[in-house]
Amino acid sequence: MDNSDRCKIIVDAMGGDYAPQNAIVGAIDAERKNPGFDLFLVGKEKEIMKVLVDKNLSFDNSRIISAEEIIEMGDTPTEAIKKKLNSSIVVGARYVKEKKAHAFVSAGNTGAMMAASTLIMGRLPNVGRPTIGAEIPNVHGTCFLFDVGAGKDAKPNHLFEYAVMGTIYARELGGVSNPQVGILSMGEEESKGNEVTTAAYKLLKESKLNFVGNVEGRDILTGKVDVVVCDGFIGNILLKFGESVPKLLKHLLKKTAEKNFIDKIKIGLFKGTLKRALKDLDYQEHGGVPLLGINGISIIGHGSSTPKAIKNMVFRAYDMYKKNLNQKIEESLKEYANIIA
Amino acid sequence: MDNSDRCKIIVDAMGGDYAPQNAIVGAIDAERKNPGFDLFLVGKEKEIMKVLVDKNLSFDNSRIISAEEIIEMGDTPTEAIKKKLNSSIVVGARYVKEKKAHAFVSAGNTGAMMAASTLIMGRLPNVGRPTIGAEIPNVHGTCFLFDVGAGKDAKPNHLFEYAVMGTIYARELGGVSNPQVGILSMGEEESKGNEVTTAAYKLLKESKLNFVGNVEGRDILTGKVDVVVCDGFIGNILLKFGESVPKLLKHLLKKTAEKNFIDKIKIGLFKGTLKRALKDLDYQEHGGVPLLGINGISIIGHGSSTPKAIKNMVFRAYDMYKKNLNQKIEESLKEYANIIA
Repeated sequence: MDNSDRCKIIVDAMGGDYAPQNAIVGAIDAERKNPGFDLFLVGKEKEIMKVLVDKNLSFDNSRIISAEEIIEMGDTPTEAIKKKLNSSIVVGARYVKEKKAHAFVSAGNTGAMMAASTLIMGRLPNVGRPTIGAEIPNVHGTCFLFDVGAGKDAKPNHLFEYAVMGTIYARELGGVSNPQVGILSMGEEESKGNEVTTAAYKLLKESKLNFVGNVEGRDILTGKVDVVVCDGFIGNILLKFGESVPKLLKHLLKKTAEKNFIDKIKIGLFKGTLKRALKDLDYQEHGGVPLLGINGISIIGHGSSTPKAIKNMVFRAYDMYKKNLNQKIEESLKEYANIIA
Repeated sequence: MDNSDRCKIIVDAMGGDYAPQNAIVGAIDAERKNPGFDLFLVGKEKEIMKVLVDKNLSFDNSRIISAEEIIEMGDTPTEAIKKKLNSSIVVGARYVKEKKAHAFVSAGNTGAMMAASTLIMGRLPNVGRPTIGAEIPNVHGTCFLFDVGAGKDAKPNHLFEYAVMGTIYARELGGVSNPQVGILSMGEEESKGNEVTTAAYKLLKESKLNFVGNVEGRDILTGKVDVVVCDGFIGNILLKFGESVPKLLKHLLKKTAEKNFIDKIKIGLFKGTLKRALKDLDYQEHGGVPLLGINGISIIGHGSSTPKAIKNMVFRAYDMYKKNLNQKIEESLKEYANIIA
């Protein structure tokens, strides 16, 4: 592998509940549709070869990176990345660390991916804590929510970093020209925050970001601002709560169908329409979440990722590369080094 | 007003965006449908009389409690309850404090109701922090979520109190025989909590409550447990996020209708069915939230409360009285006094 500037993306062939098949099929599909980057697959060589043969996929063997161990979904992240040095997650992260590749994409153990990204690839300068962002569909388009689980017990300076990184991400990847940023809180007034958000409010007020103040839970879906920052503990709870909403909806419709025959028929007729309407809520469409603040590109997928999700994760990694996202984050955080320190 | 044991409920006639009309109509409707308690209305006498005449409602004048000031929605709570001593919220709370009534119901300024309840009525023994509970419909029935905004920056002992009060509430008001309790967290394992929840986990593990450990954001709607406890800052954000979901759904359906004519017709036909299905999500059906841990019954309503919501708030207050909820909370917390202190 040379060190020219052509984008190199590694996909963890062993990551996810349906690995290696989904990861390989999705990754190769991405490469076929977008010839701008070179794809590498990391994992157990024989298993990768078998899928390539079974699925009749052509892929240059020299771009298979051998890693004969697997970090399982149930493994303890920090322990696993220390012990399983020849696992696909550790090897993939090391390749990025050693500048042999620009991006690493995995639907494997989320905690291990976070740990490998943070500890092996390392953080960008002035990043106290990396952050995972989620793109939540709302009535105006998308809400970029940071953090959704990279950290917990965030300090005010961490929320500030999330706002800086989130702004750049929304602008570069989301196409929002001057993203408005809000802190997730119990009320709009500055005093309605908790200890941490109130202190973060003071920091953000003095920044050059397009900071509009506190926003409330409802403002995520009503699209009051483009970027919402919160402690990862809260963001993670919110994200999982949101993901379970379609289940409740299904249950409520079923209950209604049981009560009334006409409603039952209507619900039957309506199924396809509803599915189309809810398509935007399907995380497979988005395909994983970026871990920002890392010295390299790290995309983390849902364990249940489909080939389509993997493909979209690869596209996202390539987008981040093309937009020079990390360089922009680095430059912006440098400006605020005194606040973050 | 005598001090016999017949339940006395005061409704704030001036509370809510559509006061005094909605509050008065809803309250009198509640009394008409349930003759088990005596209703009192607190507020500006003339305005109350005018609604009674306009709406042709018969109501005994001696049960109007005069309070000629109003705490506005925009007033600063603690300031307002100190300065507006003749406001409906302060007078109503004082009546409960002085044992002239058992319950006070208001759709007025939420912060002022919380402040008046806590500072005027006072807390029950061993209550470090009162808590507001929300009943969230889920696939198994109801999730009782405590706290949704009475406090923020909760300490571990506060989460413990919420679990005790929530258990009693779910059992007595929700009819759940041995409520399962979970702490809202980022993962099921004990280690997945933040500093506060991890400490609360240790306390709850040792209690006699039916504590099952951590639950995640999705478990609220999938109904994994009956009672979920969290910091009020998180609960408030979640509750408001949940309330905004129907808006997103409406938007997504509209977008789908615009794309496809057949879908447009189907969505038109389906409107009534969907409305019926989502009925459970309408907070008007529940009618306000109880503030637990108070030496008296305090029910706080949404500013936009309809007469139906007010009626349901009155019924809830009466239920809490009939079930001797506060006495049961007091007894249970006494048992855990050493933990809570």
